Amino acid sequence: MNSVPSLRLVVIAPDLVVSDDGDEAAVALVERSRQLRIGLLEGGFNLIATLPADTFLRERLAQLQPDMIIVDAESDARDSLEHVVMATRDERRPIVLFTNDDDTRHVKDAVAAGVSAYIVAGLEPSRIRPILDVAMARFQHEQGLRRELADARTELKDRKVIDRAKGMLMQRQGLSEQAAYEKLRKAAMDKGMRLGDVAQRMLDVADLLG
Amino acid sequence: MNSVPSLRLVVIAPDLVVSDDGDEAAVALVERSRQLRIGLLEGGFNLIATLPADTFLRERLAQLQPDMIIVDAESDARDSLEHVVMATRDERRPIVLFTNDDDTRHVKDAVAAGVSAYIVAGLEPSRIRPILDVAMARFQHEQGLRRELADARTELKDRKVIDRAKGMLMQRQGLSEQAAYEKLRKAAMDKGMRLGDVAQRMLDVADLLG
Repeated sequence: MNSVPSLRLVVIAPDLVVSDDGDEAAVALVERSRQLRIGLLEGGFNLIATLPADTFLRERLAQLQPDMIIVDAESDARDSLEHVVMATRDERRPIVLFTNDDDTRHVKDAVAAGVSAYIVAGLEPSRIRPILDVAMARFQHEQGLRRELADARTELKDRKVIDRAKGMLMQRQGLSEQAAYEKLRKAAMDKGMRLGDVAQRMLDVADLLG
Repeated sequence: MNSVPSLRLVVIAPDLVVSDDGDEAAVALVERSRQLRIGLLEGGFNLIATLPADTFLRERLAQLQPDMIIVDAESDARDSLEHVVMATRDERRPIVLFTNDDDTRHVKDAVAAGVSAYIVAGLEPSRIRPILDVAMARFQHEQGLRRELADARTELKDRKVIDRAKGMLMQRQGLSEQAAYEKLRKAAMDKGMRLGDVAQRMLDVADLLG
């Protein structure tokens, strides 16, 4: 069953303090949050930190490098998610949201923003591990798609830039297409750069020179 | 709450028949399956058919055109999924699997095969709607990524084919790059075809002619 041994998790949860006069709703919140963490620990996960969703989050995540982020949000799901999504924009990580808020109107936004699952809470601890396994598989699958897309776009962009650079060399220096290509390729090899980057640099300079 | 009104669902479930002598496990299975369907109906979904996972599935789905496919699988999750994935390979649809099998080793395969959610069953009916909402949002999000990837690849392929066709015209007919491009473009306009398709056709014929 331990298909993802000791995944390193960060839990994002609000700082809940229960006073002695005992507001019932607050007590229930703290208890739910505690149950979730117990479930994660019983599931064999490595809970490396619990953090509030504040402006330091990005920096802290960069230091901790967790494998997955669990957002434990009660009514402030939208705000918490926004912080987490901002903090992981440049370095995507799987995000699983646990909330009791069953208003799914925000689901589309959350999914588009990179949330791998959106679970209405109240789960038995034994259910948590399969959910996290699925979230991880989903995340990796989507990262694969994103990588393919990025590769295709880079190749396309390179091709356009190289074509433009080639055309410029052909026009300015009266070279044949083959000769223009060879010239670019030699420049790339000499500088130890990618062909697309050399072509882009040439176009940038040409724009400057007018 | 009715964010996805009257989604048309097809449920894939084995034909369960309970004999009067009452095998307890079989009775429990039938009851679970019944509860799932009740949950779907109570969630306001439009249950248009219940089908077995057999070789006619593809044809039936093509006729019914459901918005989403619910796989209700007990121990035969893997086999059922395989049938459903095969049947939706050419026309992707969101697939949600409900199973009690909490062995998540198949999760990666299921996710890669296009399953939008993988839920360990035993859910309260009220939990079903948010799960289906999330599955639909996920599916649409991934379809968007797939579309972007397909577009980028088509553009890249077109560009390569057009470049090759241009080069062939330049070489065989001694045309300038601009003249070769204009010739291709005119052929595309005359035939009402995409530039990439005309270029491909030209290359195909050239290969035949040798």
